[in-house]
Amino acid sequence: MTPGRPVPPPLALKITLDEGAAEQVADETAAPGEGLLAAARGAVSSTGGLVPLTVARRAPKADDVEIAIEFCGLCHSDVHTTRGEWGTQNYPLVPGHEIVGRVSRVGSDVDDFSPGDLVGVGCLVDSCRECESCLDGLEQYCERGMTGTYGAKDARNGDSITQGGYATSVVVDRRYVLRVPENLDPAAAAPLLCAGITTFSPLRRFGVEEGDVVGVVGLGGLGHMAVKLAKAMGAKVVVFTTSESKVSAALELGADDVILSRDEDTMAAANRSVDLIIDTVAAPHDLNPFFRTLRRDGALFQLGLPSEAMPPVNPGALIRRRIAYAGSLIGGIAETQEMLDFCAEHGVVSEIEIVGAEQLNHAYDRMVAGDVKYRFVLDVSTLQAPAERADA
Amino acid sequence: MTPGRPVPPPLALKITLDEGAAEQVADETAAPGEGLLAAARGAVSSTGGLVPLTVARRAPKADDVEIAIEFCGLCHSDVHTTRGEWGTQNYPLVPGHEIVGRVSRVGSDVDDFSPGDLVGVGCLVDSCRECESCLDGLEQYCERGMTGTYGAKDARNGDSITQGGYATSVVVDRRYVLRVPENLDPAAAAPLLCAGITTFSPLRRFGVEEGDVVGVVGLGGLGHMAVKLAKAMGAKVVVFTTSESKVSAALELGADDVILSRDEDTMAAANRSVDLIIDTVAAPHDLNPFFRTLRRDGALFQLGLPSEAMPPVNPGALIRRRIAYAGSLIGGIAETQEMLDFCAEHGVVSEIEIVGAEQLNHAYDRMVAGDVKYRFVLDVSTLQAPAERADA
Repeated sequence: MTPGRPVPPPLALKITLDEGAAEQVADETAAPGEGLLAAARGAVSSTGGLVPLTVARRAPKADDVEIAIEFCGLCHSDVHTTRGEWGTQNYPLVPGHEIVGRVSRVGSDVDDFSPGDLVGVGCLVDSCRECESCLDGLEQYCERGMTGTYGAKDARNGDSITQGGYATSVVVDRRYVLRVPENLDPAAAAPLLCAGITTFSPLRRFGVEEGDVVGVVGLGGLGHMAVKLAKAMGAKVVVFTTSESKVSAALELGADDVILSRDEDTMAAANRSVDLIIDTVAAPHDLNPFFRTLRRDGALFQLGLPSEAMPPVNPGALIRRRIAYAGSLIGGIAETQEMLDFCAEHGVVSEIEIVGAEQLNHAYDRMVAGDVKYRFVLDVSTLQAPAERADA
Repeated sequence: MTPGRPVPPPLALKITLDEGAAEQVADETAAPGEGLLAAARGAVSSTGGLVPLTVARRAPKADDVEIAIEFCGLCHSDVHTTRGEWGTQNYPLVPGHEIVGRVSRVGSDVDDFSPGDLVGVGCLVDSCRECESCLDGLEQYCERGMTGTYGAKDARNGDSITQGGYATSVVVDRRYVLRVPENLDPAAAAPLLCAGITTFSPLRRFGVEEGDVVGVVGLGGLGHMAVKLAKAMGAKVVVFTTSESKVSAALELGADDVILSRDEDTMAAANRSVDLIIDTVAAPHDLNPFFRTLRRDGALFQLGLPSEAMPPVNPGALIRRRIAYAGSLIGGIAETQEMLDFCAEHGVVSEIEIVGAEQLNHAYDRMVAGDVKYRFVLDVSTLQAPAERADA
């Protein structure tokens, strides 16, 4: 609720690398027509880790919603992107696309959000709004390219580069803002905006219903959400893991069964037993043993994108049972809202560990090591100066 | 209508390797309760080619339909199977699963077929009739394994090995017999029973409708049927081929466009333009360039089964447009009937070259060399002795 200090119009979108800035700008409200300076953490190079930054946010335009960020989830994409592992970036870069906060101001044409509303922002903040995918409510597949929440060129805002949610505020067009039900814990709801919708969308697309058997490969941020969401949809859930140490964790999350995928006998016993597999592993792995566990008309959705080639698919496995090997990318805005409402109805949130700004770099290292159950969430209030936090 | 000579009950299922037999047995009708001896061509080893054989067909049981075969299509599977390229076979083996003929006798419980009816038999002649796939009318995915029309163990008939349609007669349970509309040319309709249904089924499963763009990879027996069927469904059809020499042939078949798939510029221009790809190529090939031509929610069905590994699939291509890479195996009995009726309504048949029994081995060599437009069909009357044929 304290999104930062006003900056004078005309709005100059910029990022300032200034360790002191964060403390200076943290808790004032902008005057009408003025943008905010947000305290943030971001990368200034691929190797320097995350450092304090100040981000100038635009004053809300007619359709904009200004959000005082409370929590932001840490996604593996954030690590890959800030470290330059997914191609060259425009630094400085503030990551974060699992954003939950409260509306602080709205533009003149916004009548669906009001100050104080609990809202969320996920992986995209704009799209062309004209192509078939946008018109179908599948903005993530925008044919001119969606505008990602960070690191993307923002065509409707002077081609500035978008800056994400490791910051005290953000300004987003109302069309890309989600309503977060008040009965969800805001910190634990943050990962729903990426990990949640990324697994919800293929579960829905397949049409999972009561009694279906859903397999989940990999038990990280995405995988644990897939378990919870599939259970909430009434499915029987089987977790495939290579790690014996994850068996009890999977059962605790609600899985009905756990299969050690390197055990050939167990895998053989699972032959033709699963309707849908949600594969969340982002390292190359052989899919053919998993195809064999699928029933006729089953599907395997791969959600992780390995940086090296996957082993070849045996087309015979697909042909013999009319199986589909498919991909899926996050979800559209309408479906993301549907997912949040579903989670509110079924009491589903992410398992999280809250971290402060000073722990971000260590948290990244732990994510790379797989040492997180199951999602880190940044407490954005820690971006402000300790003295000011004490006053809050 | 002259399916062969009666053999005395009790029925001994057997095959006789006897060059003379074919001439001796060719044109008598069995007495009630007696099976027939059918003149046939089949393999007695993986290397010996096709030779004259005599097949003992069972007397029709209560639910059986006895068919006097008129035509049988030559499928690539026939070549692979008789030559032992798909694993060890029980020789002698009579191939053929694109069978068209007329009913000669029916069992006591058969009331849906009568002598003289034009009928067909495709790739399967039995299945368990109890599993979920069978109950769903998808007998080709029978969970206990469908009984193939040739080379398969026939559990309901003493575990004898089924013998296919390069023969003057066949006896098949009524549940696996198709009705061939009289307005279809029976020779040109024969390939519909395998090549037709194999391409019809994925077109239907995808839900192809007026205005969709269907890509067809490979222009052989399956590919040319895919072009004709997709056109009849109202789709725009694009043929992908590596061979400039096939461009005019594709256009003659009705394709709206032809893309040389090794031309990178043309492929790039086809980016995101196709809804569904029917891939009929049975040799290893890189699918990633084809995925790039697909629109959001597109699908590529691979129907051919290469004997060596395919190049790896790039999951990013699937993820970015929610694309499915799927398999499909022939079709169920009900869908095969639907396909035949569809073909009758739209005047769709295969492009064929009729061959006689003496040309079979040469035809196999030409199929391997890709020298056929687009399907060979055996004129089964040539299995009988010339003198008797002259009487017919």
